[in-house]
Amino acid sequence: MSAFSRFTPLIQSLPASVPFVGPEAIERNRGLSVKARIGANENGFGPAPSVLRAIAEAAPETWKYNDPENHALRQALAAHLGCRPNNLAIGEGIDSLLGQIVRLVIEPGMSVVTSLGAYPTFNFHVNGHGGRLVTVPYVNDREDLDGLLAAVRRENPPLVYFANPDNPMGSWWDADSIVDFARALPETTLLILDEAYCETAPEGSTPPVGALIDQPNVIRTRTFSKAYGLAGARIGYAISTPGTAAAFDKIRNHFGMARISTAAALAALEDQSYLREVLENIGRSRERIGRIARASGLLPLPSTTNFVAVDCGRDGAYSKAIVDSLMEHGVFIRMPGVAPLNRCIRISTGPEADMLLLEQALPQVLKTV
Amino acid sequence: MSAFSRFTPLIQSLPASVPFVGPEAIERNRGLSVKARIGANENGFGPAPSVLRAIAEAAPETWKYNDPENHALRQALAAHLGCRPNNLAIGEGIDSLLGQIVRLVIEPGMSVVTSLGAYPTFNFHVNGHGGRLVTVPYVNDREDLDGLLAAVRRENPPLVYFANPDNPMGSWWDADSIVDFARALPETTLLILDEAYCETAPEGSTPPVGALIDQPNVIRTRTFSKAYGLAGARIGYAISTPGTAAAFDKIRNHFGMARISTAAALAALEDQSYLREVLENIGRSRERIGRIARASGLLPLPSTTNFVAVDCGRDGAYSKAIVDSLMEHGVFIRMPGVAPLNRCIRISTGPEADMLLLEQALPQVLKTV
Repeated sequence: MSAFSRFTPLIQSLPASVPFVGPEAIERNRGLSVKARIGANENGFGPAPSVLRAIAEAAPETWKYNDPENHALRQALAAHLGCRPNNLAIGEGIDSLLGQIVRLVIEPGMSVVTSLGAYPTFNFHVNGHGGRLVTVPYVNDREDLDGLLAAVRRENPPLVYFANPDNPMGSWWDADSIVDFARALPETTLLILDEAYCETAPEGSTPPVGALIDQPNVIRTRTFSKAYGLAGARIGYAISTPGTAAAFDKIRNHFGMARISTAAALAALEDQSYLREVLENIGRSRERIGRIARASGLLPLPSTTNFVAVDCGRDGAYSKAIVDSLMEHGVFIRMPGVAPLNRCIRISTGPEADMLLLEQALPQVLKTV
Repeated sequence: MSAFSRFTPLIQSLPASVPFVGPEAIERNRGLSVKARIGANENGFGPAPSVLRAIAEAAPETWKYNDPENHALRQALAAHLGCRPNNLAIGEGIDSLLGQIVRLVIEPGMSVVTSLGAYPTFNFHVNGHGGRLVTVPYVNDREDLDGLLAAVRRENPPLVYFANPDNPMGSWWDADSIVDFARALPETTLLILDEAYCETAPEGSTPPVGALIDQPNVIRTRTFSKAYGLAGARIGYAISTPGTAAAFDKIRNHFGMARISTAAALAALEDQSYLREVLENIGRSRERIGRIARASGLLPLPSTTNFVAVDCGRDGAYSKAIVDSLMEHGVFIRMPGVAPLNRCIRISTGPEADMLLLEQALPQVLKTV
């Protein structure tokens, strides 16, 4: 294939790798059809009826660019979170914000600390800006706060990434441990505290917004993709000091937000009673996944997210065989990418119809792999 | 404001500048209300009824991430354009694609050739990656192909930007001149041929897709924001060789496209009869703007876009006074940013209600400024 000859050396060194293959690509490549879409930690309980009404109302206005200042959404989020609008930066999902943050702080060769097996899309962005990943293994299926802090002290990196609750394991730390970790960091290391799953987390595991909001080296990222059921809308946000939040304005795609998506997010935020309903459904589905796993002799790990990591007791090849075989039954799930986490498969919560398909397919699959 | 202390030197050197202030911000800052939104080259004729139906159908599925390969949209665009899907890269509007292209080729200090007064968002991305803008003045309100080529030969830049039809002047070149220009470029200079307004351009001004598709140093960018009336959806695409198109995969936000937006773009592409209807409306509105301008003694410039640059015959301060005063009447328009283009105001086409407001307000405004 003939390509332009003068891409930067960094670009030329990058693989055309994709952090995640989508279920649609799996369907196309394998000639299969997804019946239970429980692999991407989406929210199969779907958006609220009030959100669908907001989308319908916004649709005829989609000829207009969205407000580049995201004024209404920042106002609403600030009121909801108990902070000020200038503590917030809005982006096209957390993925986009992660890319922007990496660009803000990483020059080629600089080190970035994260956990071994944590979010691949973050690693994709670090590699894409020439950063050097320094990874710390999980301990007892949790990200290792002490180990991460030790790596930070050793490496003096501009950036450390930590997710609470964690993906792909579903584990979590208590709020005090997170705050202690953030306060112990040198001011020259920026913490990305990824809280994509904070809505499903139990009381006491997410630090109050005020606890870290004055610390210029902390950015917390959140999303409407998970509990709010709007993965396809691409709305994420970052919480930080006003000075740190303002840095996004230097590089972001100011007219990048979709107008209908923004209306959907506003409506979703407004409808907290629907969110509570969904959170109950997610909790019940987590238990249901646990029962299905145990009935097949597998071990569900504790989770405070909208998915459950299930220990299959063997190696990554075994887990991969289960993932691939479940897909033959139309059940789309995923698994962690590195050992020892990859002894697990990762199953997203979802409606009972999906759980029934999983319940029927899993024992059959385990007989064959 | 306390900000993180270790942003890269490049980031620290950047202003928190915004390429365009949105009409919503103008409303908030000046306490005014936009009644005729004809300043951002949006399409006030709106999306097709078939697009609104597609949005309604897609809405309940917005809990799913969009297919990261954008398979369906690339297939449909390839069929429409007469190229192959791997000639295409999809992005969150042309703005996002421009940012990605700059990142693919520009390292700090490298030169980038563009016209003086051309698209500010492109310049924003060049500055954001530390590029050095080398600008060539317009000649007779057109981008100067010979001048741009001379600058390329002098500077040996990795990147040159050219829009046909042009924004902000609405002028254009014939297809043969564009092809000659592209073929005359050294293979070490990548041409961004921005064709955001190609649907409104007359026969013979847009090179056939096949004319440049084998040239690895050409990327043509197009959008659903203008003629298709989907600015708020954020769907743009790039046409190039497969090798050049593949480079986007190395850095793009793979899950960045909104699902409803993609469904809307597919439906819009399908509904070519609605597009023809809109193009007629745009053509009539261009003439209407011309008559309104002439009735006030102003000179409308020829345009093949969905806007008209109107020569007000004096300097930028005079044009700015007109722009600001029109807003007091609820008429939102914009103007070019640099001399001598800024002797003009720029008015987007729109429905008759908007034209009536313009027709009423303009003579009053001209009496006062």
